[in-house]
Amino acid sequence: MKKESNKLKENLVNSDFSVKGECAISLILTKLDIINIELSMILDRNVIQMKTGRMKSYESTCKKMKKKGLEKNFSNALEKINDLIGVRAICSYVDDIYRIAEILSEQKDVKIVKVKDYIRDPKSSGYRSLHIIMEIPIGFQGGTQWMKAELQLRTAAMDYWANLDHQLRYKRGRKEAEVIDEELRACSDIIGTLDRKMLEIRKKIDKI
Amino acid sequence: MKKESNKLKENLVNSDFSVKGECAISLILTKLDIINIELSMILDRNVIQMKTGRMKSYESTCKKMKKKGLEKNFSNALEKINDLIGVRAICSYVDDIYRIAEILSEQKDVKIVKVKDYIRDPKSSGYRSLHIIMEIPIGFQGGTQWMKAELQLRTAAMDYWANLDHQLRYKRGRKEAEVIDEELRACSDIIGTLDRKMLEIRKKIDKI
Amino acid sequence: MKKESNKLKENLVNSDFSVKGECAISLILTKLDIINIELSMILDRNVIQMKTGRMKSYESTCKKMKKKGLEKNFSNALEKINDLIGVRAICSYVDDIYRIAEILSEQKDVKIVKVKDYIRDPKSSGYRSLHIIMEIPIGFQGGTQWMKAELQLRTAAMDYWANLDHQLRYKRGRKEAEVIDEELRACSDIIGTLDRKMLEIRKKIDKI
Amino acid sequence: MKKESNKLKENLVNSDFSVKGECAISLILTKLDIINIELSMILDRNVIQMKTGRMKSYESTCKKMKKKGLEKNFSNALEKINDLIGVRAICSYVDDIYRIAEILSEQKDVKIVKVKDYIRDPKSSGYRSLHIIMEIPIGFQGGTQWMKAELQLRTAAMDYWANLDHQLRYKRGRKEAEVIDEELRACSDIIGTLDRKMLEIRKKIDKI
Repeated sequence: MKKESNKLKENLVNSDFSVKGECAISLILTKLDIINIELSMILDRNVIQMKTGRMKSYESTCKKMKKKGLEKNFSNALEKINDLIGVRAICSYVDDIYRIAEILSEQKDVKIVKVKDYIRDPKSSGYRSLHIIMEIPIGFQGGTQWMKAELQLRTAAMDYWANLDHQLRYKRGRKEAEVIDEELRACSDIIGTLDRKMLEIRKKIDKI
Repeated sequence: MKKESNKLKENLVNSDFSVKGECAISLILTKLDIINIELSMILDRNVIQMKTGRMKSYESTCKKMKKKGLEKNFSNALEKINDLIGVRAICSYVDDIYRIAEILSEQKDVKIVKVKDYIRDPKSSGYRSLHIIMEIPIGFQGGTQWMKAELQLRTAAMDYWANLDHQLRYKRGRKEAEVIDEELRACSDIIGTLDRKMLEIRKKIDKI
Repeated sequence: MKKESNKLKENLVNSDFSVKGECAISLILTKLDIINIELSMILDRNVIQMKTGRMKSYESTCKKMKKKGLEKNFSNALEKINDLIGVRAICSYVDDIYRIAEILSEQKDVKIVKVKDYIRDPKSSGYRSLHIIMEIPIGFQGGTQWMKAELQLRTAAMDYWANLDHQLRYKRGRKEAEVIDEELRACSDIIGTLDRKMLEIRKKIDKI
Repeated sequence: MKKESNKLKENLVNSDFSVKGECAISLILTKLDIINIELSMILDRNVIQMKTGRMKSYESTCKKMKKKGLEKNFSNALEKINDLIGVRAICSYVDDIYRIAEILSEQKDVKIVKVKDYIRDPKSSGYRSLHIIMEIPIGFQGGTQWMKAELQLRTAAMDYWANLDHQLRYKRGRKEAEVIDEELRACSDIIGTLDRKMLEIRKKIDKI
């Protein structure tokens, strides 16, 4: 069991997998660049304001596997942990998020595995984002391999909330945290309203 | 008059001034980097999420001078247009904005010329940000010169609003725009509330 | 004729073509990133030290068309000017250049149009580099389009020489320039020798 | 002894020192940016082609202390290891290197501690570069602190050689390495000649 866990670490860090993961991140970021360049020509504004990518650390992976009750080995990680390879993009408006999702879904070298729409149905915590689990082909000398990655699309307001929620991560379970959870949910509702209103206004501006 | 305007263009574009302006932007961005690095050690989170700098274009400068009823010449531009050299930083929470402003004001190689607090007193349009007009010394071979620059500090929510407001810029004056202005003001109030609540929650999380 | 030249400018600047060109540059830079990441794992050293991309300016395009005796129109530019879209990579050693060229030639989404080997056969000026004219598919909403681009692969020493040669560009034709051309050719020979010796040494180090 | 070594590690990694070191690197890179911007206006070409900065790793620091016969503790490291904080800039020509050194030496917020001119007097290995040990003030909330850093200035050809030499680092001491050392020295002589000739040609081009 200990040995499997060490193998898991080896596989996640400084390995063939992590190299290919970095390549997958590069490719997805470039895809987002291209979508942004094209849409900005049509819409005369940026649709993507910021984007980042990262490989999930060994520590976070273990924590998530434990939470899901999974045995710690690499094939479990590959199969069940969707965001081993993760990319996040902050989008200007809610409709831009779905626009980007649609363009990606039409690309031949992108397989959409699953879409989790936490914008239409926020998590009970109040978390909002669109998650797209996708596979993209990485062309290596030994042949092409399809790599799974999770793309998180959010507005700036959703990201604001998610960062604050993230700061609570190690403090959950304590009694004081419960009250805060409640207040975070209330903030998430404000953000939902704000995003809707901002989108309505932008649509009105577009029409003038 | 035409000639003065051409000289203004020359002075703003590809000139000694624009070179020094780029240097001023580099220096301010580095100052923000250092402040972020130091505070992130103390607070265990980022205080600056994103930052950008730019020289104001000749066209925007002329538009602003016209709006202010100024004669188009370079000395007028230097004296009256505070954001010829501009840097913007998106901060995590409202108190981070004032924290950064305070650190800057204590630095020996920064002269604070003026602070416009559009967070405590939003513009009538609903615009919120903290503007710091400052001077920093640029050490060139010909000696040191103090350059004026405007630093805009905002939360992500304030920036969200400002971007939307910016999209209305060429459409103002039309009748349809008036209704939108009203709705933007309402959104600005939501953002004020959101920023306050997010800060309250973060302070509670800090205390746990 | 004047009108065609204006259309050429429109097509090269701020157009659909220039947008797709920027996307092609992004994609090629990402391809080089991936190749570098993979090879650096195998070889335990970087094979690409630096890389840049740029769209050819309208002025340079006109100059080149004039030099080639071409009528200034966009279809001529597209067909005959290979480096409208250009990427340059500085490689560690001469064999790395051919290694990268081979990997690219095996990729399914790269069509090699032409290879000009100015390393084996330097130009009479002394210019050394490997030029790969290639086509890559850019997936846009309106369908996929294959874009032509030129990739220049060089060692640092070849790049050193090319930069110096470039500084002479506007002074060619004058009498003093002739002597310099001769000296540049002599330097190019030194660089050829240096690159060979450096490669020999690296191969010996690899074997220890 | 073991404990001191652990303290050394703590001090070099994730500490106040490493944070300030990152700030020092940012500041030096910005200084080089400003020098490059200013000189490029005067000379109509780049003087700095590439630049990088890094904190020395704990492992490399220990290795260097062992080589120098120093006891492993932080005050020894701070005092005797000049390149704990290191910046490297690749310059276009040899005279640019001295030009940059001179500008830095005239800046009020730079103290030059020592200059090691391995261009005029290459190391016996053949290594060529100009090393400037300098101190710069980092303004933190707790007051200003002068941080020591090493700036290495080289031409592209010198850097080419240094990278190759670096690949031999773990193989020194073996018999085969001796022959290679000899060949590296011969290459260094070629590079010295090349740099001189390139500079002569550039000066002639400047005069036309």
